[in-house]
Amino acid sequence: MDKKAVRTLIDSVRSSGRRALSAPEAQQLCEAYGIPTPKQGLAKSAAEAAKIAARLGFPVVLKIVSDDILHKTEAGGVIVGLKSAGDVRKAFDRLVKSAKAYKKNAAIQGVQVQQMVGAGREVLVGAVSDPSFGKLVAFGLGGVLVEVLKDITFRLAPVSKKDALSMLDGVRGAEILRGVRGAKGVDRNALADIIQKVSNLANDFPEILEVDLNPIFATDKGAHAVDVRIVVGQPPAQRQRFSQSAILASMQRIMNPRSVAVIGASAEDGKIGNSVMKNLINGGYAGNIYPIHPKAEEILGRKAYPSVLNVPEVIDVAVFAIPAKFCAAAMDEVGRKEIPGAVMIPSGFAEVGETALQDELLGVAQRHGVRIMGPNIYGFYYTPRNLCATFCTPYDVKGKVALSSQSGGVGMSIVGFSRTTRMGVSAIVGLGNKSDLDEDDLLTYFEQDDHTQVIAMHCEDLKDGRSFAEVASRVSKKKPVVMLKAGRTALGARAAASHTGALAGNDKIYDDVLRQCGVIRAKSLNDLLQFARGLQVLPTPKGENIIIITGAGGSGVLLSDACVDAGLSLMKMPPDLDAGFRKFIPPFGAAGNPVDITGGEPPATYANTIRYALAEPRIHSLILGYWHTIITPPMVFAKLCAEVVEEARAKGIDKPVVASLVGDVQVEEACEYLYERGIVAYPYTTELPVAVLGAKYQWARGAGLL
Amino acid sequence: MDKKAVRTLIDSVRSSGRRALSAPEAQQLCEAYGIPTPKQGLAKSAAEAAKIAARLGFPVVLKIVSDDILHKTEAGGVIVGLKSAGDVRKAFDRLVKSAKAYKKNAAIQGVQVQQMVGAGREVLVGAVSDPSFGKLVAFGLGGVLVEVLKDITFRLAPVSKKDALSMLDGVRGAEILRGVRGAKGVDRNALADIIQKVSNLANDFPEILEVDLNPIFATDKGAHAVDVRIVVGQPPAQRQRFSQSAILASMQRIMNPRSVAVIGASAEDGKIGNSVMKNLINGGYAGNIYPIHPKAEEILGRKAYPSVLNVPEVIDVAVFAIPAKFCAAAMDEVGRKEIPGAVMIPSGFAEVGETALQDELLGVAQRHGVRIMGPNIYGFYYTPRNLCATFCTPYDVKGKVALSSQSGGVGMSIVGFSRTTRMGVSAIVGLGNKSDLDEDDLLTYFEQDDHTQVIAMHCEDLKDGRSFAEVASRVSKKKPVVMLKAGRTALGARAAASHTGALAGNDKIYDDVLRQCGVIRAKSLNDLLQFARGLQVLPTPKGENIIIITGAGGSGVLLSDACVDAGLSLMKMPPDLDAGFRKFIPPFGAAGNPVDITGGEPPATYANTIRYALAEPRIHSLILGYWHTIITPPMVFAKLCAEVVEEARAKGIDKPVVASLVGDVQVEEACEYLYERGIVAYPYTTELPVAVLGAKYQWARGAGLL
Repeated sequence: MDKKAVRTLIDSVRSSGRRALSAPEAQQLCEAYGIPTPKQGLAKSAAEAAKIAARLGFPVVLKIVSDDILHKTEAGGVIVGLKSAGDVRKAFDRLVKSAKAYKKNAAIQGVQVQQMVGAGREVLVGAVSDPSFGKLVAFGLGGVLVEVLKDITFRLAPVSKKDALSMLDGVRGAEILRGVRGAKGVDRNALADIIQKVSNLANDFPEILEVDLNPIFATDKGAHAVDVRIVVGQPPAQRQRFSQSAILASMQRIMNPRSVAVIGASAEDGKIGNSVMKNLINGGYAGNIYPIHPKAEEILGRKAYPSVLNVPEVIDVAVFAIPAKFCAAAMDEVGRKEIPGAVMIPSGFAEVGETALQDELLGVAQRHGVRIMGPNIYGFYYTPRNLCATFCTPYDVKGKVALSSQSGGVGMSIVGFSRTTRMGVSAIVGLGNKSDLDEDDLLTYFEQDDHTQVIAMHCEDLKDGRSFAEVASRVSKKKPVVMLKAGRTALGARAAASHTGALAGNDKIYDDVLRQCGVIRAKSLNDLLQFARGLQVLPTPKGENIIIITGAGGSGVLLSDACVDAGLSLMKMPPDLDAGFRKFIPPFGAAGNPVDITGGEPPATYANTIRYALAEPRIHSLILGYWHTIITPPMVFAKLCAEVVEEARAKGIDKPVVASLVGDVQVEEACEYLYERGIVAYPYTTELPVAVLGAKYQWARGAGLL
Repeated sequence: MDKKAVRTLIDSVRSSGRRALSAPEAQQLCEAYGIPTPKQGLAKSAAEAAKIAARLGFPVVLKIVSDDILHKTEAGGVIVGLKSAGDVRKAFDRLVKSAKAYKKNAAIQGVQVQQMVGAGREVLVGAVSDPSFGKLVAFGLGGVLVEVLKDITFRLAPVSKKDALSMLDGVRGAEILRGVRGAKGVDRNALADIIQKVSNLANDFPEILEVDLNPIFATDKGAHAVDVRIVVGQPPAQRQRFSQSAILASMQRIMNPRSVAVIGASAEDGKIGNSVMKNLINGGYAGNIYPIHPKAEEILGRKAYPSVLNVPEVIDVAVFAIPAKFCAAAMDEVGRKEIPGAVMIPSGFAEVGETALQDELLGVAQRHGVRIMGPNIYGFYYTPRNLCATFCTPYDVKGKVALSSQSGGVGMSIVGFSRTTRMGVSAIVGLGNKSDLDEDDLLTYFEQDDHTQVIAMHCEDLKDGRSFAEVASRVSKKKPVVMLKAGRTALGARAAASHTGALAGNDKIYDDVLRQCGVIRAKSLNDLLQFARGLQVLPTPKGENIIIITGAGGSGVLLSDACVDAGLSLMKMPPDLDAGFRKFIPPFGAAGNPVDITGGEPPATYANTIRYALAEPRIHSLILGYWHTIITPPMVFAKLCAEVVEEARAKGIDKPVVASLVGDVQVEEACEYLYERGIVAYPYTTELPVAVLGAKYQWARGAGLL
């Protein structure tokens, strides 16, 4: 890679005030990075064009080169298939004439004479600069596929060879690249190589904002970029970053504070500063609580202070419950007191257009090294410390999932849903305006937090997607990370000067990058909550072999449908296992998979088949379909099921078991009983238990555990 | 259309024992129906080929014609672009040689010489015979799009011009046909014309099992079918059909019986015949109930009879609760008693492989004109008559939705879900093995039943999809019909001799045909149940203008996402309405759409904005996003919301209003309160209320009401 050549080129383009490289410049740049392009030359005259063509060998393509003409084809600026010197000379004159006709005063730098490469499969490789994720490389099938079907995929740049190859399978038309209708497959290594080089190029030079190799002609013998478009400019500024150890140091104190100050604490019911005090006290927080109030002697039985500066002890967290306009001054005191974390409940900042007020606040905090949660949040819960640093209703059921939300409404949903479904949590954190603390910081803390085994996040935007991706890639190897990315259907409206840029709809990028990082994407609020609830109790599967055991044939069909939707496939039942199951089920029951034990069976048939499946090492996960009958009522099923699973666990066998219970309302109680014993069970739905299992598998695959 | 020519051709092919027409035969058949193909001739020698080519004009294509060679290209049996008589002669010899090399003893009928039509967009038109739906016409984009992306769409044949045109928009790559990358759009009328003609051809001749026009080259000036493949054979037998009036006569008596006999009634707890008796009595059925028992004098206080023949009065329904092996004999008595309907609860028939037993039962019933519900069902509920003819738990909450299920498990789910969500129903019907009564019969009854305004069905297969489609197309114009088609992910494995046939995955056909009939397809059991519950209370929208009013910005984003998923688009807010809303919301709130009233607002802000939106005739539907606050608690919101909606209804304004409530558990009670007042509200989900509204819109559009 000749970085110096690229640097020179870019500097010269930028110093001339241009944004786009000319075709010959772009080609030089490709050559510097070893990206194969057809041989070519720049001709200033018809005679020179003919000479270059003769040297390259016929046939050739002629293309006008003019900074004033962006769309060459539209301007009649491209002529292909020229087979002789005479044709080339005539074509040169024709091109110049067309260009002048298209744009009267167009400055023409010359005509590019290019070797005509044999047709092949058209593909596109490009790069874009995303405001949040930074440099991304793109791959798509060329021609109508990318234009009409938007069949394109993105990865963070730079990419590994493996990532590059995964992109070839990441488009819907992937099969085309393997060869269809008698055509040979393309040279996958050659394409992956171009993808890697483009990703390196974009990554090495922040000023390269967009790259567009379109089309690339790929054959079984290689690939050539026939048209190259490169746009340079000012790279976006980076958000402030902290080291992982600095983040952790602050987060440890914020999540496990020895003491909490409430700035704006109040004795008056209905005030936020009153709710926060009550939640801290009633939630059972064991550390010191310091109400801060200009005049009060004490509030709710705790000694009050006029300022944090008057508190004689160390303070780890300051919860703000004062109007926005007073926050910056109070923050200065917080900083001088060397409090590491400020929980900024107040609203009235950027969310209502008061960006300057928020910037001022952030400035003060940064000067002192205070990390800010919010502003415009409900606060946070951390159950291992019985900490309810929030004005919302308290919640203290301990569990293994940490949740965060950018929106207060979603945060309240988390509390309500948790309460009604008996979901235990380790933390619930409001991020609000995310002026400072964001998802990366939370991930960094929860990664090493033994109280947290699953992380579920609602977010509207990632302020620094690149940083998130780095942390998430690491954390998701250890613990499932689920994200509900809101605003997913609103395509990012951006001015794009290239094809790849125009196709970089914000959401497709989120989709691809989250997958690249091993993050499970929830497609709805309900999915986020259900995954949070279910993933924490399901053990990690040890393999892909899943079976369905059902008492209702109809449920079996619907559960099979759900498996396909959830990216799960049913184990092909080996004959000996088939025979094994048949011993327990009626002769007209169907073994195979689903195992249909039929509707009228007694509890023993459920117990026997479930026990058999748990004991069999070739089976890795169980999906149960229960049907409410008089002979096996819901709670009888729930109890036998929990017992058999417990029995297996006692022997060291712990497999994911999910269940769909259909029947009258008694199935609801049975589902709760099962969930409390580590079996993810739902009434009236066949989809949801399978979707939760699917999420667990998606995580396990991404983490390399399967 | 020269039907006689087609008849002659088909008869000659079938009498020669062949299934596939030769290329020249297929072309003749196309000509008989006015389907444009390139000009062509059949040559027996090289000289003759040259002569034909000269007559057609160069360039030409030569194709081998041999019944022994199915895949011409694979056999080297096609040579394109021949520009002279000499070329044609050489090509002729080459083709014959290749054919012989490919298959030693291939009988060669000759070589087809075909005018070479100018390239254009490749498309495919075909027809298949589906075992359930009968003749279907298919349209797809040719080449890799149809092969790799399976981009194909189906309609019941014959199709109207409008349906044919809708197929051009029914493929994912539809934009391609309108012209992309500077290419002209194709002649849409020419393609629709071919689709119509192919659909007529398949419909007119039951023996035409598959048609495959692939490729058709379409340009802006017309379209030509370059390769035609037609397969003939024995058409599938039709299921017995009844006239609509005959169905209605039976169904009227079955659903509204003056009296019910229970064959196998029992006084013993736990027996099915006991449960049925109890449910009939305790459910409040007002007609006569006749227990049938060989010896008993009376059962549960009702006089018992040894046979239905001994009952002195007319009987309209006989519920069977006896073992399968006794059913046929009892059915004969039912028939002799002229009872129109038999509710066959017993299992042990086709579902366990006892097909002969089921056929025998059906035979007896048909001989007497008895209609059978089942066998292998839980029975049925019809609340307008307080009728619980089932062994399951009774359910009597009256409502406007009729549900049916093929599976008992789903039936039990309907009961449990209804009870827990307070959903009223008009009917719940088990169809089980569907030996006779099926979805068409139910639709025919519910169509004219004033107690039923929505129909929701779970089905695994339609025994006579064609008949269902006819009835559903009519009924769905009046009342929403929702269907959960289970088994949707299992592609119908079928032996196909054509491209179209191979692409006719069972589920894609269901998808397209249900849409064609105006049936809303539920993608999950939960969706089926939620749509059943929600659609019955929502009024029909009068237009497409939808607005979101939200107290939580975060909910607004998620609700907007959900709108896109549900096929709804947010109204572009006119400036005067925008100004209207601004009057009620804080200055930092966002008008536009969503209308973000912001989180801290009192009840009046919700009330004012909702009232304003209801009163504004340009707004047709409302989506509300409520956020739990101290200032506007959940039940306060629910009451004001219901009040404002009621106020509008009193003035004759009835618009669909759905709501998402996020907050602590009190939002659950608020949602129930709202649902009972005709506002479809859900806690902890932004997706579901919008999905229900989306289903209502899908129905209204299909019924031509929008």
